[in-house]
Amino acid sequence: MTEKAERFVVTYRVTPDDARPIEAHAKDICIEETVEIPEDAVPASHWDAGIVGVIENITERPRDFTDMPRDYDVRISYRVDITNNQISNFVNVLFGNISIRRGIKIVDLALTESQAKAFGGPRKGIDGIRAALGVHGRPLATTAVKPMGLSARDLAALCGGYAQGGLDIIKDDHGLIDQHFHPFEERVARIMDAIRDANAKTRHNTHYYPMVAGPFADLERQFSFAKAQGCFGVLIAPLLIGLDAGFYLARKYDLAVMTHPTFTGTHFHDPRHGMTPAILLGTLFRLFGADISVFPNYGGRFTFTKEECVDLAQALRGPYHGLRSAFPSPAGGMVIEKVGAMLDVFGVDTALLIGGALLRYSSDPMVSARAFVEAIEKAVTEKGTSL
Amino acid sequence: MTEKAERFVVTYRVTPDDARPIEAHAKDICIEETVEIPEDAVPASHWDAGIVGVIENITERPRDFTDMPRDYDVRISYRVDITNNQISNFVNVLFGNISIRRGIKIVDLALTESQAKAFGGPRKGIDGIRAALGVHGRPLATTAVKPMGLSARDLAALCGGYAQGGLDIIKDDHGLIDQHFHPFEERVARIMDAIRDANAKTRHNTHYYPMVAGPFADLERQFSFAKAQGCFGVLIAPLLIGLDAGFYLARKYDLAVMTHPTFTGTHFHDPRHGMTPAILLGTLFRLFGADISVFPNYGGRFTFTKEECVDLAQALRGPYHGLRSAFPSPAGGMVIEKVGAMLDVFGVDTALLIGGALLRYSSDPMVSARAFVEAIEKAVTEKGTSL
Repeated sequence: MTEKAERFVVTYRVTPDDARPIEAHAKDICIEETVEIPEDAVPASHWDAGIVGVIENITERPRDFTDMPRDYDVRISYRVDITNNQISNFVNVLFGNISIRRGIKIVDLALTESQAKAFGGPRKGIDGIRAALGVHGRPLATTAVKPMGLSARDLAALCGGYAQGGLDIIKDDHGLIDQHFHPFEERVARIMDAIRDANAKTRHNTHYYPMVAGPFADLERQFSFAKAQGCFGVLIAPLLIGLDAGFYLARKYDLAVMTHPTFTGTHFHDPRHGMTPAILLGTLFRLFGADISVFPNYGGRFTFTKEECVDLAQALRGPYHGLRSAFPSPAGGMVIEKVGAMLDVFGVDTALLIGGALLRYSSDPMVSARAFVEAIEKAVTEKGTSL
Repeated sequence: MTEKAERFVVTYRVTPDDARPIEAHAKDICIEETVEIPEDAVPASHWDAGIVGVIENITERPRDFTDMPRDYDVRISYRVDITNNQISNFVNVLFGNISIRRGIKIVDLALTESQAKAFGGPRKGIDGIRAALGVHGRPLATTAVKPMGLSARDLAALCGGYAQGGLDIIKDDHGLIDQHFHPFEERVARIMDAIRDANAKTRHNTHYYPMVAGPFADLERQFSFAKAQGCFGVLIAPLLIGLDAGFYLARKYDLAVMTHPTFTGTHFHDPRHGMTPAILLGTLFRLFGADISVFPNYGGRFTFTKEECVDLAQALRGPYHGLRSAFPSPAGGMVIEKVGAMLDVFGVDTALLIGGALLRYSSDPMVSARAFVEAIEKAVTEKGTSL
């Protein structure tokens, strides 16, 4: 069985918090994420069958100064079948109980072809979204409709203006759920009406992605409603509604998926704990089915570094067992003036997301939207599309 | 409207990471968790209506040394209705985007009576679980059946032995899902058979709580199956299957809820980021419906301090708007020899959980279980039940 069972490899960056050898820390992970019993209680056949995680290799990382704590990249392999190729089981094997132990960060994931196929990745991807929008050779112009607390009519009027100004994708602010100010069904229906009217005038396709975050009992009905109203995609927050729920329902109703990073942040603050943004918001969300992954860009009001953002974009668009590419969507305090700089960093296959700054740019959403799209076109003309 | 709209209060411990005044950091939270637009773009009526978070007060915390970073307890109130009294929306308002900003930790939650009623808390609670087990005046003896990778028959034999030895609750190890080694339905059916047989002999009630973690499409069927097989409760991992999914389905199928902390750990490592164990695994899980909350005890292989564990137990059992009390279930490397010490710290209303150490204590699960129960009875006799 040992030779036969397919395995995948997780790279954990481990910073030991005690004097035990790194091999002991690595073995802790192998056991904690699988059999979760004392080493001497593991049945012999379990070792033979490779059910316990296996240390593939351990590399000490170079240190700039000798008084820095030692850390190591520890590659551990697991049998594919213990994850059942189901999203929450898979994440539980990668980083379940060990999330509660100190000094463990996931920095790389080497999956098998069969895993990539089983999870499936983006169903539309960059090409599918571009084809449906009819937009090629430039970044997408994307915004979030807000603020929470306006009426559904006011939100729809804003969206109509944005669509007339030529935006590609309007998503709900992720705080817009099903509150009495703007109940889900009324909001989606009114916004889709406003956008359809605008699209008929502009002959441009603006898409609207509503935030779908209803409780378990309503969730499927909301996906189905969004589809029935003609939405091309939806916005989901996987860490709130369940790691697999939104991906599954979007696939069932043939909706594109934009993921939101809300409630993910504790993974990112410390280089010793959690997962990197590239792993969680990049590799994993793409694997599970994200077509667009929204993340807090560097230089806004959040704390990702430029390098982290570039790595994340690479995780969404680089080759990975033939999965479709997903759009990186840098956001969080972006402004029109930064469009050129963002094009330089992220290239054309990017869904630029400017939210609040559009409200501020002009009281007429059509004017703001047009300025955003023109800034993108100008930047592409100046810089070329080979980026 | 301002006077009328009900508000609740979150206490954030804020450690500023820049030189701006604490008031600026506090206002950032108020905006980020609600309207999420630049302050000068917020409609005037939104301020009047109290839709933006409101700073109630700010207290600088005492420092032991003047070279420690300053930190503050910032109390911010939000309108209840923006959360829709739905679990994932509520968590999104408490700690959504700000999870990605540095230096913010939730340390207290003052909810309203109406919120407590809406979420409902434990449906069985300590009293309901005790009544069904017929066990009073002592901590519960609880174990996890494992390891993953045994056959369903072997797991059932183990459970039968534990039940004959008089354990109160046997839960699945949280890594046991629906793998081919022990498919969910076969496992639940065989284990329930084994436990029923044992209960008929011992006249004690042992309960079995299967781990329910199926993908969205199978989840409800698994809850329904557990109920149909006669399970009293289930084990769920809210951060994997969706913050509300398991609580909702357990309520629908009248099953007790034991929560597992897997994948929560990044909240706990840093006093400046996330939520305290007492808030996430205590106040919130209890509010949402946990009857038993499993957590990594101090002194085992995890990193909670004794004080964090005691605070967590208090959050599960202390008065909170009339919600039922939930069992704290300290776990993670516990052994029979520690039963007395755990009774001293946690008192009788505790579900002591010893997992792997029972496998090690004896090759006969009945012997291990009996030793565990006897250790509990002995400790209670020696120390009294007034703890």
